[in-house]
Amino acid sequence: MAKLRRDPINGRWIIVNVEEPSKPDDFEKEQHIYKGDNCPFCYGHENLTPPEVDAFRKPGAQPNTPGWQVRVVPNKYPALENSGNLDRRAVGIFDMSNGIGDHEVIIDSPNHKATLDELNDHEVEAVVRMYCRRATTLIEDKRFKYILIFKNHGPSAGASLEHEHSQLIALPMVPKNVLDELHGSHHYYNFRGRCVFCDIIFQENQEKERIILENEDFISFCPYISRFPFEIWVMPKKHSPYFCHMEDREKANLSKILKQTLSRLKKILYDPAYNFIIHTSPIDETNKESYHWHIEIMPKLTRVAGFEWGTGFYIVPTPPEVAAKYLREVK
Amino acid sequence: MAKLRRDPINGRWIIVNVEEPSKPDDFEKEQHIYKGDNCPFCYGHENLTPPEVDAFRKPGAQPNTPGWQVRVVPNKYPALENSGNLDRRAVGIFDMSNGIGDHEVIIDSPNHKATLDELNDHEVEAVVRMYCRRATTLIEDKRFKYILIFKNHGPSAGASLEHEHSQLIALPMVPKNVLDELHGSHHYYNFRGRCVFCDIIFQENQEKERIILENEDFISFCPYISRFPFEIWVMPKKHSPYFCHMEDREKANLSKILKQTLSRLKKILYDPAYNFIIHTSPIDETNKESYHWHIEIMPKLTRVAGFEWGTGFYIVPTPPEVAAKYLREVK
Repeated sequence: MAKLRRDPINGRWIIVNVEEPSKPDDFEKEQHIYKGDNCPFCYGHENLTPPEVDAFRKPGAQPNTPGWQVRVVPNKYPALENSGNLDRRAVGIFDMSNGIGDHEVIIDSPNHKATLDELNDHEVEAVVRMYCRRATTLIEDKRFKYILIFKNHGPSAGASLEHEHSQLIALPMVPKNVLDELHGSHHYYNFRGRCVFCDIIFQENQEKERIILENEDFISFCPYISRFPFEIWVMPKKHSPYFCHMEDREKANLSKILKQTLSRLKKILYDPAYNFIIHTSPIDETNKESYHWHIEIMPKLTRVAGFEWGTGFYIVPTPPEVAAKYLREVK
Repeated sequence: MAKLRRDPINGRWIIVNVEEPSKPDDFEKEQHIYKGDNCPFCYGHENLTPPEVDAFRKPGAQPNTPGWQVRVVPNKYPALENSGNLDRRAVGIFDMSNGIGDHEVIIDSPNHKATLDELNDHEVEAVVRMYCRRATTLIEDKRFKYILIFKNHGPSAGASLEHEHSQLIALPMVPKNVLDELHGSHHYYNFRGRCVFCDIIFQENQEKERIILENEDFISFCPYISRFPFEIWVMPKKHSPYFCHMEDREKANLSKILKQTLSRLKKILYDPAYNFIIHTSPIDETNKESYHWHIEIMPKLTRVAGFEWGTGFYIVPTPPEVAAKYLREVK
């Protein structure tokens, strides 16, 4: 089992693989595991994954056999493992614990070649419904403090298998980046009495130039404070801290805007690698009014180098106003 | 001129290129500018760079001609520009300012093929002395609040030219990552009455297993809380907040340990791409006792993907204890 270590300077947590350390020669190999042969996520290969933990299936189809639409399996190489206790303790001036958590793979569809935007509306909606169902189920485990759902699309975004999939990691502590966002938005709320994300939507709606798409419940836009060229946020118009509290109509409308937005991104940038991350509040009552869930889509077009690592500044070669214009106008 | 925008949620600053935005087609090209022909950093090509701002030269050698050992030129594509005023102002709920700052390239030596570890002791020392001299000069400009010195080595670490060089960026505000480290170490100091970095050195010296090298003034080690496999910190043993306050003997000893450490890293990992970043205090009096300057070396062996972006957690496949053993034992 991995160990967790905490940085005493800035509160970051590190997951250290103490049991099977990578050797210097292993790193070159890791770049080349992206492939499609004998894909463990295709129909008929269900035995190549650990036994499934959840799936949407045709009536009567047996677990771990074909006939599913979305399938959830434990990650074969989990970052954190779901057995035992945290056992938090000190190591001199440092803090550590066991690497307790959960790491699931959500296989978006049985279609090996289809990217998320190429699935039909109902198929994307099934993926979104499964995200909600897994998050709702896992948060019942009181050892877990945060559920992160994300997608790595394309090898340079960290995907190691070609067949489109998403990931869910249950964490035993609220991570630093989430805490930063919670504290920042809480501070803003205390000062102005308004949700910063609602304020961002209001301003984007007034200025209009960074908006890509909207429907009854959602808006997608290139935020004024984009860190990456062609970065996109998808945000519910209604104030809500929790992703998995969406109603059915909202799930359908999220699926539509996500599909349409990703499709435009693909056309403009020739199927770029990207990460998307669902930013949601941990389940507690303290930030209901100040936090507003959303999805951040970050295409991998530029390299993060010494300057960004050293400062947390980002250099954006394409202003979001220009990026949004491309994304709005694409046929 | 670029514009600076501030994220109202977490305080990050973004540098936006509003004047010559990159188009979608530009990103593919950006990956391929790493080359050696007609190198602007070689002897005889001094006219291919903007006029130099500083250099160590043989007595009698004219500026912008051969005969230099270390040469400093303005970056041809600067992230920030050294003219005008900040003009900080609000744009609705956001903050912005002009992109005022400075961006210099420090050409480590006239040798096109030599990496920093392949220079002799005196040549590395000349690079370190130039780092100090430029930082000391630029901090006199009261518009600048922080001087960042860093190196991108290899294309996947963000180097766009093969000829070994370092960079210096003068910033008009103390960046978020530096503030996080200052606040964290100040908080630790208030609680324990000791410098967290001095405490780290003490603990590393007791446990010994993560130390790579040491000399009279410096220690190099793989820190307990490494974020990346084979991450290395080089730290002065004596408590000091400011990089550029080193005495001559310290500059010589830093050069030696840096050269030897980078040489070991190259042998173990076959000349990996890496970033190194000098972490130093801004010039003020508030954190003299709690901050301790150091260099962080981060080899680019793994990809930062959705999980890391979403959380600030890092997954380290090689524990620092194992990495340090490889680095100590290499012939």
